[in-house]
Amino acid sequence: MSAEAPLNPTAAPSRPKNIVIMIGDGMGPSYTSAYRYYKDNPDTEEIEQTVFDRLLVGMASTYPARVSGYVTDSAAAATALSTGVKSYNGAIGVDVNKRPIPTLLERAKKLGLSTGVAVTCQVNHATPAAFLSHDENRRNYDAIAASYINTDADLILGGGEKYFPTPLREQFAAKGYQVLTDFAALDSVTQPKVLGLFADVQLPWSMDEPDAHKLSKMTTKALELLSNNPQGFVLMVEGSQIDWAGHDNDVAAAMGELDEFAHSIEIVEQFIRSHPDTLVVVTADHNTGGMSVGANGKYEWHPEVLRQLKASPDAMAANALGEEQWRDTLATSLGFSIDDELYEKLSRARMQGKKALSEAIKHEIDARTNTGWTTGGHTGVDVQVFAAGPGSELFIGNQDNTDIANKIISLLPKPKKEAK
Amino acid sequence: MSAEAPLNPTAAPSRPKNIVIMIGDGMGPSYTSAYRYYKDNPDTEEIEQTVFDRLLVGMASTYPARVSGYVTDSAAAATALSTGVKSYNGAIGVDVNKRPIPTLLERAKKLGLSTGVAVTCQVNHATPAAFLSHDENRRNYDAIAASYINTDADLILGGGEKYFPTPLREQFAAKGYQVLTDFAALDSVTQPKVLGLFADVQLPWSMDEPDAHKLSKMTTKALELLSNNPQGFVLMVEGSQIDWAGHDNDVAAAMGELDEFAHSIEIVEQFIRSHPDTLVVVTADHNTGGMSVGANGKYEWHPEVLRQLKASPDAMAANALGEEQWRDTLATSLGFSIDDELYEKLSRARMQGKKALSEAIKHEIDARTNTGWTTGGHTGVDVQVFAAGPGSELFIGNQDNTDIANKIISLLPKPKKEAK
Repeated sequence: MSAEAPLNPTAAPSRPKNIVIMIGDGMGPSYTSAYRYYKDNPDTEEIEQTVFDRLLVGMASTYPARVSGYVTDSAAAATALSTGVKSYNGAIGVDVNKRPIPTLLERAKKLGLSTGVAVTCQVNHATPAAFLSHDENRRNYDAIAASYINTDADLILGGGEKYFPTPLREQFAAKGYQVLTDFAALDSVTQPKVLGLFADVQLPWSMDEPDAHKLSKMTTKALELLSNNPQGFVLMVEGSQIDWAGHDNDVAAAMGELDEFAHSIEIVEQFIRSHPDTLVVVTADHNTGGMSVGANGKYEWHPEVLRQLKASPDAMAANALGEEQWRDTLATSLGFSIDDELYEKLSRARMQGKKALSEAIKHEIDARTNTGWTTGGHTGVDVQVFAAGPGSELFIGNQDNTDIANKIISLLPKPKKEAK
Repeated sequence: MSAEAPLNPTAAPSRPKNIVIMIGDGMGPSYTSAYRYYKDNPDTEEIEQTVFDRLLVGMASTYPARVSGYVTDSAAAATALSTGVKSYNGAIGVDVNKRPIPTLLERAKKLGLSTGVAVTCQVNHATPAAFLSHDENRRNYDAIAASYINTDADLILGGGEKYFPTPLREQFAAKGYQVLTDFAALDSVTQPKVLGLFADVQLPWSMDEPDAHKLSKMTTKALELLSNNPQGFVLMVEGSQIDWAGHDNDVAAAMGELDEFAHSIEIVEQFIRSHPDTLVVVTADHNTGGMSVGANGKYEWHPEVLRQLKASPDAMAANALGEEQWRDTLATSLGFSIDDELYEKLSRARMQGKKALSEAIKHEIDARTNTGWTTGGHTGVDVQVFAAGPGSELFIGNQDNTDIANKIISLLPKPKKEAK
């Protein structure tokens, strides 16, 4: 047998020691296609592959339990992905009868693995909540935050400072957690447990802090800290605000969030190169916004408009509201000049406030890129599944979102017999 | 080795004798998701799998040559799928310099295989044209039809009678083709070659002749006739009017066309069970309409509305135009009662003619199903790839549409040395 030959090419996939599940919230198929064209270098003949292209293995249906119809919310979808059980929209780690179901992270913890979540929303938002806890209603933010004290999770990284009042933080500290609110402090942390709350609610749009790479940095640190456990770990990483950009019908912010999520996947890819006993599974919980790459009868999409933007529509609107001479500044941020007709339109929106101006800016970007939207909510299209590492073959082809969880759960180590 | 063990589980995929490529024109990911929910039996707890779920293996990017941007038309997409070469929108089997490129069917014919196409559009429309011939412009319908006399294809089945005037049909007959225009006559055909022109232009919407199953029957007959060749065959089957329903933003007609296309795939699946040396690859050339399963901020989709329709919106509008007492007849076809407000709306549309009334009916169906659309054209989202049979493993994961062609071409038999 040659030294170059792959190990055991015909054997069943071996069990991974570490498992990373990464969720692009709201990241339906149009998002990853759009992202490929957004990242395309127009000076080359070919269109470059993205990390999503490299890792695609299958797709998944996302429908919730029958009681909630065919279109899921993030809570039911995350419950499916963390427990393998369909539930109603709004359910956090509970079934249709509101009974708690063990989550992937709870199972892993029980088996002696380390666990963590790293997200860009508040840490008690639907997706991380359904991996860490149980509640009959995703809106019970305070109760969900308080319940985290019992999870024993090694890392809880994201936003949501306002949901963790001082007494609760003191409880976490008493349990051995470092409680951080300064993002820079994360860098010097050398061991779990960590509760990192790096924003009052959600983190800023990635495109508004282009050098921050917060999700990538949280992912890097999580891999480093969780690797300390010789038993292995399970980590959930979420590009949470892809969904929020979708709800806002904001293609610019969506591409920014997707880019940071893609960087984070690349970090895990790199980790797998040096830790080949690690499985990564990437998927979306559902599609958001009904975004389309091309619209209005035209066979065109113009990502070059997006590549030139210097800030998110929200940030541009906020800036323009605070300035008298906003026309030139806004034009600079947009990367195109504002003619009189557009200036009229934006001026009228600006008088109605920040939200209206942001909407007007997004409409202009949609018109120039030729991007379409059908909803401020979710849609029922299947999402993609991407995977690499031992066990990744299990995710080839079509599956249900509950299958993803059940396959991952089947790859956890078998429970050890109790010592007598 | 056990008798149950798969043959040669570790060897490279064996070469298929027969290849069927099936194209759902315009069938982006939302269509197959919607179709699953449309076919769901609401009386069972689970949601049943479709043939698409069984056969999914990967996805494909669809962008045309750089000169045409990121959103393809059917001509460039079919050229990519039949030749492995990217071209400009409008190109039929020619490259960006308008030079003809050998198509899959031409290559197969040269190697001694039988070839055929079976479609629901006119046989000289973009997709079949790019598999059979070469033209710098898809609009040259007459020239494309005339060029088919040189293809030597064994079966050309679909619509388009008006593009084949009597002298051209006589040329086909002189070359040994049976030229059919009566669909029922296809049943008694026992050998190639056949030119079947079963409609003036396209075939009727499947939902308007629910027992006709024309694409399924053409597929069955094509498999039967082409199997006569011991060297094997290459067949292209297209569910052409999924795309046309998408352009019309007609979710009802789309589900009807998709259903007939799914039946046709199931026929090929069944054929593979008895002919395991057959590969089927199913894909779409692009997405059409930007359809979304759910819209307008509501987390709902209501396929039960579609399941009750008795005719296509086009047919309902045509009927209503020819009747004085149309309200009740239309209500029966729609499967729901027409209240006064809706009657007002439909009456106004009816006065503007058939197209306006059909539009109004579609809007009502969109509102009741909560279906969204962003365009009357195409969009750039990746499409799915489905496959079964020897070589199907090659199509796992992400690929470009040209890769699909090149993989299929690589599975053709190697050219035999000429006898000296």
